[in-house]
Amino acid sequence: VVVAVDANGADLGPAEVAAGAVLAAGQGVRVLLFGPVEEMGIPATTRAEDVEAVDAPLSIAKSPDPARAARASPEASIVQAARAVAEGRAQALVCAGGTGAALAAGLFNIKRARGIHRPALALPLPIPGPAGGRTLILLDVGANAQARAEHLVQFAFMGAALARTVLDISSPRVGLLSNGEEQERGSPLVVEARTQLERRLEAAAQGGDPAHAPPFELVGNVEGGDLTSGAADVIVTDGFTGNIALKLIEGVSQTMLRAIRDAALSTPRAQLGGLLLRPALRSFREEIDPEGQGGAYLLGLRRLGVVPHGSFTRHGFAQAILRAARGAQEDLVGRTHVALEQAGALRSAGGQPPSAPDASLQKR
Amino acid sequence: VVVAVDANGADLGPAEVAAGAVLAAGQGVRVLLFGPVEEMGIPATTRAEDVEAVDAPLSIAKSPDPARAARASPEASIVQAARAVAEGRAQALVCAGGTGAALAAGLFNIKRARGIHRPALALPLPIPGPAGGRTLILLDVGANAQARAEHLVQFAFMGAALARTVLDISSPRVGLLSNGEEQERGSPLVVEARTQLERRLEAAAQGGDPAHAPPFELVGNVEGGDLTSGAADVIVTDGFTGNIALKLIEGVSQTMLRAIRDAALSTPRAQLGGLLLRPALRSFREEIDPEGQGGAYLLGLRRLGVVPHGSFTRHGFAQAILRAARGAQEDLVGRTHVALEQAGALRSAGGQPPSAPDASLQKR
Repeated sequence: VVVAVDANGADLGPAEVAAGAVLAAGQGVRVLLFGPVEEMGIPATTRAEDVEAVDAPLSIAKSPDPARAARASPEASIVQAARAVAEGRAQALVCAGGTGAALAAGLFNIKRARGIHRPALALPLPIPGPAGGRTLILLDVGANAQARAEHLVQFAFMGAALARTVLDISSPRVGLLSNGEEQERGSPLVVEARTQLERRLEAAAQGGDPAHAPPFELVGNVEGGDLTSGAADVIVTDGFTGNIALKLIEGVSQTMLRAIRDAALSTPRAQLGGLLLRPALRSFREEIDPEGQGGAYLLGLRRLGVVPHGSFTRHGFAQAILRAARGAQEDLVGRTHVALEQAGALRSAGGQPPSAPDASLQKR
Repeated sequence: VVVAVDANGADLGPAEVAAGAVLAAGQGVRVLLFGPVEEMGIPATTRAEDVEAVDAPLSIAKSPDPARAARASPEASIVQAARAVAEGRAQALVCAGGTGAALAAGLFNIKRARGIHRPALALPLPIPGPAGGRTLILLDVGANAQARAEHLVQFAFMGAALARTVLDISSPRVGLLSNGEEQERGSPLVVEARTQLERRLEAAAQGGDPAHAPPFELVGNVEGGDLTSGAADVIVTDGFTGNIALKLIEGVSQTMLRAIRDAALSTPRAQLGGLLLRPALRSFREEIDPEGQGGAYLLGLRRLGVVPHGSFTRHGFAQAILRAARGAQEDLVGRTHVALEQAGALRSAGGQPPSAPDASLQKR
């Protein structure tokens, strides 16, 4: 498997991404690396058949209008990387910085998968808990500021396919994020999406191969507290709410950790306690370290994309590349398509025209 | 000031609420207490002019349809309490359990304030940080599952008036919760609300008393991370998003604290560290204890309501009663009205008919 990687946009610079590519190559993935060759510092010992660097110094990761930039700058590193995937020189895309740029370059080059209304950003979130915790998939975390019910329906199938592939859960429990668990609760969008989902799951059960397990179990509405409660493996929401939820989780976690650190510095006694506790807390911090998950998955294009957080180190970037390779190998895109088709949830060719890519492409 | 209190619905039972009423009475507030007199166990030494108990054993706190129950059960404790406020026997309402019941009983008896589209639930949230942390006001945390832009506009004025009254902030910074800080970001609801808010603030500045300070500073869009960052004193959102955000904060905080406790039990060394750290962590836990804030404010009725969390102890209920009394004394409702009037943000009498109370009244 070959993964096309955009090395621009990372907080630690292109060399950190390149180091991640070298790590991933050590695990058997071939990397096509687009970025400023002079800054990437790839070791001379690296074989070109492991990591092939393509000089592409132009970055649009910080562009205020990524959609326009992706169109106007065919030489930009992310556009070249996306084109490599579109042309079959690579099977998956990894973008080190700028979700908006990745989404725009992906939409214009790799294109939306057949029958998909909108791509979505799906984030595996590490949730602390007994036995090393667990992972929740939350989507959409911000590819679209608006959603219709049929988008949420497709997101549910996409998220379930991702949970099967990356979390090895054979029948993931999927919930719709709402303001109450009761059936009648929720925004009109949520209520309509749940009705449609129930119908699609029935259709999938009837039309699908009887030997085939249902693609997922719909657990209905879940609440904000269920992002950490374990009530679902996949939680589906619109990109507006998902983006707020994601940043809220990051903010609350960081604020809590900071407050506890401050408490552990407040008195000599607390300082000693903090020192003794530190090794035990280290494993907890590793457990919730987002680098272990490799970042957000960009789903709904003809090929898979993975968007690590710009603040990642080489280990996170390596993880992102390995995850992208695994998703391509296991044909995540094809599996999602089959599940959507069996459920009759694909956008019909003769139906409504494809909606325009969202004007407010997201930066994270 | 007299506060009408519904003692039914609390997790610890009516006696705990009654004990809170006695505590509040000790600070000079008169309480009209509606609940099962036999279970409330008010000390014989309590003077009736401090806490007057009215026997009202019927509770609708757990009703699946609080709107219908509030209409059908005039003898229910929350309905009697709301009627006491409507008839002027008390100046504010406190409901120990069941936000939905409080909202329904309030709407049917106390009624919506003149010119207000929808009531909102505003929650003061303790945010840990240096110097004892700070308090953020988040609204609407779930009175309405849906909102229009003019609702969010009014919520901003309501939240600002609350921040002035209970947080003593003369010019609160108000933000709109969105999926990005940039002006053009956000759902159509958020974009429209911000445009309207800017117009209203201009109107308030021109039409208002020039000696009068502007009612608040609009800081524009804020993101999920800004609930803990300190970027705003008041964050405005619709009840769907606000309810999800609130439960997410509760869930993440509890999960983090549990994980840290588990870490502190994992090895003998960590246990010792946890013991030494405990006193320092205690003040942190007190800092983020929601009982200190008394619960959520029900704003937008002709009189003030406060809805403590059903899990509170007597200290939280006492705090809720004291807060309600203070809000009544400082004429929070009247101040909000003046600010909305000066900004031209009141619903016009000849305009659209009042929207029906939301069918999905919230339980918390």
